[in-house]
Amino acid sequence: MSMRYLTAHLAQEIDAKLMGEAGAFSLDQLMELAGLAVAQALAASFSIPKYTRVLVCCGPGNQGGDGLVAARHLSHFGYKPTLYMPKTGNKDIYQRLHKQCTNMSIPTLPASADLPASLKSQDLILDAIFGFSFQGPLRAPFSRILPLLRDSGLPMLSVDIPSGWEVERGPVPLQSEEGEDLGAPLDPEVLISLTAPKLGVKGYRGRHWLGGRFVPPAMEREWELNLPEYPGSEQIVQLPTSAEL
Amino acid sequence: MSMRYLTAHLAQEIDAKLMGEAGAFSLDQLMELAGLAVAQALAASFSIPKYTRVLVCCGPGNQGGDGLVAARHLSHFGYKPTLYMPKTGNKDIYQRLHKQCTNMSIPTLPASADLPASLKSQDLILDAIFGFSFQGPLRAPFSRILPLLRDSGLPMLSVDIPSGWEVERGPVPLQSEEGEDLGAPLDPEVLISLTAPKLGVKGYRGRHWLGGRFVPPAMEREWELNLPEYPGSEQIVQLPTSAEL
Repeated sequence: MSMRYLTAHLAQEIDAKLMGEAGAFSLDQLMELAGLAVAQALAASFSIPKYTRVLVCCGPGNQGGDGLVAARHLSHFGYKPTLYMPKTGNKDIYQRLHKQCTNMSIPTLPASADLPASLKSQDLILDAIFGFSFQGPLRAPFSRILPLLRDSGLPMLSVDIPSGWEVERGPVPLQSEEGEDLGAPLDPEVLISLTAPKLGVKGYRGRHWLGGRFVPPAMEREWELNLPEYPGSEQIVQLPTSAEL
Repeated sequence: MSMRYLTAHLAQEIDAKLMGEAGAFSLDQLMELAGLAVAQALAASFSIPKYTRVLVCCGPGNQGGDGLVAARHLSHFGYKPTLYMPKTGNKDIYQRLHKQCTNMSIPTLPASADLPASLKSQDLILDAIFGFSFQGPLRAPFSRILPLLRDSGLPMLSVDIPSGWEVERGPVPLQSEEGEDLGAPLDPEVLISLTAPKLGVKGYRGRHWLGGRFVPPAMEREWELNLPEYPGSEQIVQLPTSAEL
């Protein structure tokens, strides 16, 4: 049986059940495991010293939280992450995760930073801006930022769904809420799906990891996820790219 | 500079600072990383299928919580853990972690179980009963339980400090609070220290892991921990045994 690609609705339902009374997980737990998986997928794809300086771009929601956790673990792994949070999250956990990064001496670019100039001193982009709750078109400041990230020429690892892609339909040209055409979608070299891949990445042809090894088998069966087997005690597993399927 | 072995007081101070305003970690986060490290150390030391059935013995405090997290991850790794919680913790997190195990279909032995009979159908013991807050002598029911675990003939992995050892002085004969001599201390084949090893395990000669890769370097320097380098993106590192030092 083949792996299930999730609708946005099912992804939300799974999240809600895992963190509700039935699943009993806290957001802190799942975000920690998700962010660790992101950092490990990055380390498995882009090695030090060639890729040491990572611009970790975090959105204001839970995906941004995954990015903050990943940045902290990357720092432990020997990478030199820099945070870029054009819009910071309000949740208490977001603030705590940011403080944990500051305690690791991870710098944060000001929201007003000259992004093109800053990108020149980075080796890699970690895209943790939008997750499976994203709905276009792009609002400011992201309508300005996503094209700059795309045009930087830096390799990119995206979390769950490349930012600006439609969660169910996949890559679409970037468009601002004023209806302006902002050009081609992001084209990340590496992707890590969390819990289970979303419909929009079904045709993704880059290196594709799965993380989020926390779904109880009974729930996996209930939702017919047909997840692949993770090797040993690893927290990530590489998926066959759609080219190989 | 050699690794620092912690007094009970310093271990508590580090925990408090990590989870206080300065460190900004939640207990959920640190327990998740600690429990994952415990499970990975077990997997790195005792392979399936020879060691599949693991009796995970959890005390009522935070160390028991680490055990519950480890049991869940072990189940994901393919082990068959069984929980044994002679005294369950009251904290909300403890209850949630137990529920997460139940969701994984991990069975829990009743506190009244015939322990010697139950041990006959296990391959391995994970000792997560007492941590660095332990102070002897042993109270019931642990004064009954620790000798049974010791005499089971099963290999054992202990977390942080083998249960019944003095946190700073190390192995001492087991003694009940009634002053009864209960014989030799536990002698686990494998130990995983969390954050940094405690004074009492300085002479430990078995296989020794370190986990808890979450101490910010600035705090590590402040406390002069001189932790070893973890390899790559691993969450555990093997320590030289005292025989090799």
